[in-house]
Order: sequence, then C-alpha cells, then structure tokens
Amino acid sequence: MKEKGNCLVAEAGGPWAVINASLYGVIKEAQKHREISKILGSRHGIEGMLNDEIVDLGWEDEKTIEGLKKTPGAALGGTRTRLRSSKLVAHSDLQKAFDVLKKYDVKYLFYLGGNDSMDTAYKLSHAAKETDYDLQVIGVPKTGDNDLLETDHSLGYGSAAKYVAASVREAGLHTESMYTAEPVTILVTVGRNTGWLPAASALAREGKKTAPHLIYLPEVPLIREKFLADVEKTCREVGGAFIVTGEGLVDEEGRYLAAEDDEVSKDGFGHPELGGVGEYLEELIQKNLKKNARTVKLDICQQSAMHFASQTDLDEAIMLGRQAVEFALQGKNGIMVTLQREEKEPYHCHVGSIALEKVANKERKFPPQWINKEGNYVTSNFLSYVRPLILGEVHVNIEEGLPVYARLKMIKAEPE
Amino acid sequence: MKEKGNCLVAEAGGPWAVINASLYGVIKEAQKHREISKILGSRHGIEGMLNDEIVDLGWEDEKTIEGLKKTPGAALGGTRTRLRSSKLVAHSDLQKAFDVLKKYDVKYLFYLGGNDSMDTAYKLSHAAKETDYDLQVIGVPKTGDNDLLETDHSLGYGSAAKYVAASVREAGLHTESMYTAEPVTILVTVGRNTGWLPAASALAREGKKTAPHLIYLPEVPLIREKFLADVEKTCREVGGAFIVTGEGLVDEEGRYLAAEDDEVSKDGFGHPELGGVGEYLEELIQKNLKKNARTVKLDICQQSAMHFASQTDLDEAIMLGRQAVEFALQGKNGIMVTLQREEKEPYHCHVGSIALEKVANKERKFPPQWINKEGNYVTSNFLSYVRPLILGEVHVNIEEGLPVYARLKMIKAEPE
Repeated sequence: MKEKGNCLVAEAGGPWAVINASLYGVIKEAQKHREISKILGSRHGIEGMLNDEIVDLGWEDEKTIEGLKKTPGAALGGTRTRLRSSKLVAHSDLQKAFDVLKKYDVKYLFYLGGNDSMDTAYKLSHAAKETDYDLQVIGVPKTGDNDLLETDHSLGYGSAAKYVAASVREAGLHTESMYTAEPVTILVTVGRNTGWLPAASALAREGKKTAPHLIYLPEVPLIREKFLADVEKTCREVGGAFIVTGEGLVDEEGRYLAAEDDEVSKDGFGHPELGGVGEYLEELIQKNLKKNARTVKLDICQQSAMHFASQTDLDEAIMLGRQAVEFALQGKNGIMVTLQREEKEPYHCHVGSIALEKVANKERKFPPQWINKEGNYVTSNFLSYVRPLILGEVHVNIEEGLPVYARLKMIKAEPE
Repeated sequence: MKEKGNCLVAEAGGPWAVINASLYGVIKEAQKHREISKILGSRHGIEGMLNDEIVDLGWEDEKTIEGLKKTPGAALGGTRTRLRSSKLVAHSDLQKAFDVLKKYDVKYLFYLGGNDSMDTAYKLSHAAKETDYDLQVIGVPKTGDNDLLETDHSLGYGSAAKYVAASVREAGLHTESMYTAEPVTILVTVGRNTGWLPAASALAREGKKTAPHLIYLPEVPLIREKFLADVEKTCREVGGAFIVTGEGLVDEEGRYLAAEDDEVSKDGFGHPELGGVGEYLEELIQKNLKKNARTVKLDICQQSAMHFASQTDLDEAIMLGRQAVEFALQGKNGIMVTLQREEKEPYHCHVGSIALEKVANKERKFPPQWINKEGNYVTSNFLSYVRPLILGEVHVNIEEGLPVYARLKMIKAEPE
C-alpha cells in the first residue's frame, strides 16, 4: 500500500496514568506502516487543532518514546476544551480544526480520552464525512472513572483502582492503630457521577474488620441519618471506621452534597468542581457522633501514580493504541476501540470496536446489582470483575530515589 | 550475664511507615540476649501501661515478626495519650503505670515516638529513679515531622519525604499537562509547626519550570498579598503553579490560617487539628486571581505509604531498634538513641544517644538558612541534607496486585 498521508494523535480530557502508554502504542504501530508518512501530535487535545499547535513526533528520540510508556500526565497536554454542539463543518471551530488538519495533510486522527472527548472525536468524524474530507477518526477509551459504555473497562481504571486500594489498605492499618484517638478516616476518590473508583477500594479488605468498612457511591443518594447510623455501628463493632466515598455524592433530592457553585470552580466542560464531600462528612460525624474524623483527598495522585500502576492496565493501553492504528489502516472510521473480556479463565481481553456516536457523551453508571442492599458496600461479583484489572506492578525507572519520566521535545511540525 | 527481667516495647504518637521496623529491630535484638526473658508489647503506647493491656510477643511466629519490618501503621497501636505534667510517682497515672510494669516484671522499656512521646518516656524514667524502681528507659526517635532535636533526622522522615516527592513529581506532570484548564495545584503535607516535609518536596524538581514551584513552610508567616503575587508570577512564567505547603501555615500575627477551634477537632494532645489550609489557599487564588485551583491532601497516606518507602529509612529504623536494646543492656538509661551523620561521603549515620530530657517536648524548627530569601523555597544545602534519606526502594510483598502486611496475634501476657 502506498503512502496516504500523516497521522495526528491527541490526548484529551484529564490525563490518567497510562494515557501516554496508548500514545506510545500509536507511535510504535504507526512507525511500522508505510501508509503513514509523519506522526504528528496535537497539543492539548482539540486545542492544538484550533490553535495550530501541532508537533512532529518524528523528532523525538527512541529513548523518549520508550519513556512515554511509563510516564504519567499527558505528554502532549490534556484539555477541558471540547467542540461545541453544532455538527456542521461551517461552525467556526470545526472549520478551524479542518483548516489545520488539511494544512498538515492529516488523514488519520487518534483521539485518546473519555466520554466528553469521544463526543469531540465523533463530531470531527461526522463533519469529515459530510464534507468528503478523507479523515479516519479512531477513539481510544481513557478514563479512570471507567464510565465509558461498550467496553469492559477503560484505560487508567486498573491503575487508579490499584493505587486507591493499596492506599486504603495502608491508611486503613494506620487508622486501625489509632482507633482510640482518631477513629474515623474518610478517603475521597475522584469520579463525578459514577462509583467505579470508590468501589474498587473494596479490594483492600482482608476480613470483616479491616478497611474499608463503608463505601458510598454517587449512584446511591446519601441519607444523612442512615450514614451516621452506619458509621456509629461500625465504630461500635470494629472500634473505628474507614469510609471511602466518591466525590460526587448526592442527597435524596439529587443535589451534590458539596458542590461549589461559583463560576471559577467550574471545569472547562461546565461541570461544577466537587471537592468538599470529605470535609462535609467529616463535620457531620464530628458534630453528631462527637468522633474525631479526618479526610484524605488523593485527588490527581489517583490519576498520576505511575509508581504503583497496574501492568495489566499499561499493557492494555499499549495494545489499544496499536490496534487503533491497525483499525485505521484496515479502513475503519468513526469508531472507538474497546476491550472485550473473554469468558474463560485466566482473564484476557481482546480488542473490539464501537461506533463513536454510541459512546459519545454517555455515562456508564455502576451497576445496581453490584451494590449491597444497605447501599454502603459492593458485592463479591464486582470484586471478581475488578480483581484482574489491578494485577502486575509497573516498575518505573528510579534515579536518586525518585521515578524519572520522559518529556517530549515538542518540535513544531512543518505544513505540507 | 544472668536473666534480669522482661522488656516492654511501646509505639506512641501517630505511626509513621517504619515504626514497626524499629519494633522488629527491638524484638530481634532482644531475642538474642539472655538477660531479657520475655518480650512484651504495650497496646497503644502508654495506654497499655495504664489499662493493663500488655501482650506477649513471644507467641508471634517468625513470619509475622519478619512481616513487621515492612508493615505500616503501629502494629501494637499508637496513641495520643500522654502522661500529664506531674513528675511525682504519686501521680495516679504514673502509679498505675508502675503497678503494671511491676506486675509484668518489666526492667527495660523501649518507647518509640516523637517529641510528645519522649516526654512520657522521660517522666517514666525520672519517676523510676525517684522510687528506686529498676527500670531502664530508652526512646527511639520516630516522627516523619522530623522535628526531634539532637538527631540528624528522625525515623519515618525519609519514607514520607520520598513518597511526597514522588507524588509531587507525578502530580506535577499531571498538572503541567492541564495548565490551560486547571493551572494551580496545592499539595498539603503533614507537619504541624515545622516544614521539614513540605521542604522535601523540592527533591521532585528537575528544572526551573517543573514542580514544585513554590514551597511554604510553617516557619515563614504567610503574607497573603506576597503569596498571591508569587502564584501569579509563576503562572505567568511557567503557565501554571504547583504549590506545596505544610498544614500549619500561620499569618503575620502567628495565627493558624485554617484551624478548626471546636473541641472535637482537637487531637488527644490538645493541639487543634489543621486540615483546611489547602482549601483556604485555593479559595484565595480563585477569588483573587480567578484561576482554577485544586487541593491534594495525602494526609495519613504520607505516614503509611510502605509501597514506596525509603530503604535507607527502613534500615535505620531497624538499626535504632536493635541499638536501643544494646544500649539498655550496656546499662544506659533515660536516653533516646540518635542518628549521627558522618562527615565523609558516601552518606552514613552511626548511632548516638542523648538524655531524654533534652529532647522531650522540644521542637526542631526548619533552619532559616535553608529557606530562600523570598521565603517561598528551600536552598540547595537542604537538598544535600535530605537527598540521601530517600535512597533505596522498599519492596513490599504483593499478592493479587496489592501489598500484604503482617498482623500481630495479640496474646495477652501472663503476670509474673
């Protein structure tokens, strides 16, 4: 097959630990195929296409490319910018993006991101078809929130789950040894509307008495009295309580327990920022139960803790990056690559695909059948689902006692 | 030398990652010496002596003892309880403690803790001398706050420093890739009045432009205007800002920026709990600079992250535990073992000792000469001090993707 044009890869949304591993997969696979002449990168997702910030990854040395595999953050930059609602290419944003894509002769676009980002990928793909621009768009599902539909799980989830579960096991032992003085710990995980990540903390538990004792998911409205009764019962039976909660807990009326509603606190997608749920519950416990409580907010460490990432997650991130390129070269377009779990043991996922419009902007909630009757824990079926995803430890390179990570040179691409 | 009596070991204050490694060192060394018949443990520091909760560590199997070496939390339980001010043995608490010590024929007491705990150790030692009770008390300096006097550094500091620095490097890369949307991250470390831990985050920095950009220590009063100017300047020059701060920041009048002053929020030592400094600064930035900011609060994960602990710290913790026993058998009493750094390269510390009364209740502030003129960073001399303390990685045992840790059987001791 002869040369067709250049490929462009972009990382969008907030990064998760293994997003650069997918970038690595895309680059390594693209290097193998003659149909692709240059491998370009878009700075900050769609922003690079709107602002003409396109870099030529051909200038990066092999060591840097290898280093990407185990580097947290988004090496090309993430973004909260998305294309606005119009699907028409006449829309000024889309027009700008297509001008840049043409300028660099981009024929393949690999868009790594979550459900908001898949919407942007879908719009680009749709507009290309409408205008007969020869562009193949393939999405790669990256979100530790794990809320993308049609894939067994999303990239980044296994690593975040592993880090959160390890942190809960360790902080749980710490809390246990301090029950007499500081009996309650609340650990808040990211995940706006879905409870996949707080749920995964259940992996830390070794027996009825060990952390975490209570898990609250955004899918289950929090009833304050029930919550306080749960905490008190646990303290009575165990001596203290280790609570894990998602950041987006809602009350019975569906209102966020701790939303900051000023404009500055909204992220670029217009979602209110949620941070205060731990402090809210902490105060509830201190006022009503007169028990000392503390909050752990790992925040972006959950998205970036490569020093204790899941090798399974990393391997799958590379695999999906590679497969995105292969699918594009097979002529597929407007799809997101997916992970399809095989029925048989041991755990294995093969790669599938789904139309972008089926996942764009949609949210996969935590399944009700995996929540216990009390609404304060997860079931063993969920544990069977999540357990294989955290297996294997990524060994980062260490220098002077700290992990060392790669940085791209970011050489601006030449227009064609 | 013939048998003299039993030894008792206690873990006090809040645990830090390697406190059980010192416990391991005490046990392994004590096992070697005939002068010590039984190795007993006090549950929750001094509380076990007040409430007659003494366990016989002779019932623990070898695998558990080995496992202690790399187990976070305080295996025997920590405490915020301390002996009150009186030094007289007639004081009811001291009387109770001595009744229990006699009941179990305790002749050696090893007390692992920070400066509050060294005060309790000192009082026990002093009271024993006053009443001619044959008790040798040796303290082991454990506090990741690193604020004990007369020792080069304290146990737990190296591991906490390593974990914080790695987290800052990783979260820094994450933040850097999101500058266009979420430019400011504030990471709050523990350390009430001293800035040793936030200072250590400077190890993460790889160049002028990388995280952390600004470090604020409790030793330097925060001037709001100056702080905002620092953040704005950094954002202008770098694109965003990664800020590390101690939890106990004070304003120009010496008031904590974010103290909760209700009774429940005071810890057992009567200190107000400090948690809100990140949220305080976050609001300051959002209101005044109109920039999106987020807070990371690693909280007790800093004290318990054995999965990325410092091997140097762990080795020293075992060494000091062993040496405490050796000193006791040499007849030393009323001392704390210390780490003395040797002048020559490579880094090495030998063990020294200091009278407990010289360290009890005293606090070693972060040295002013290691703070830059602007009051917003640390100097390279500090980096030379801290760098060797984080070297080497502890390899924890992993099962099903998570670290596995030891638990004591806690068999109650028989009175003599």
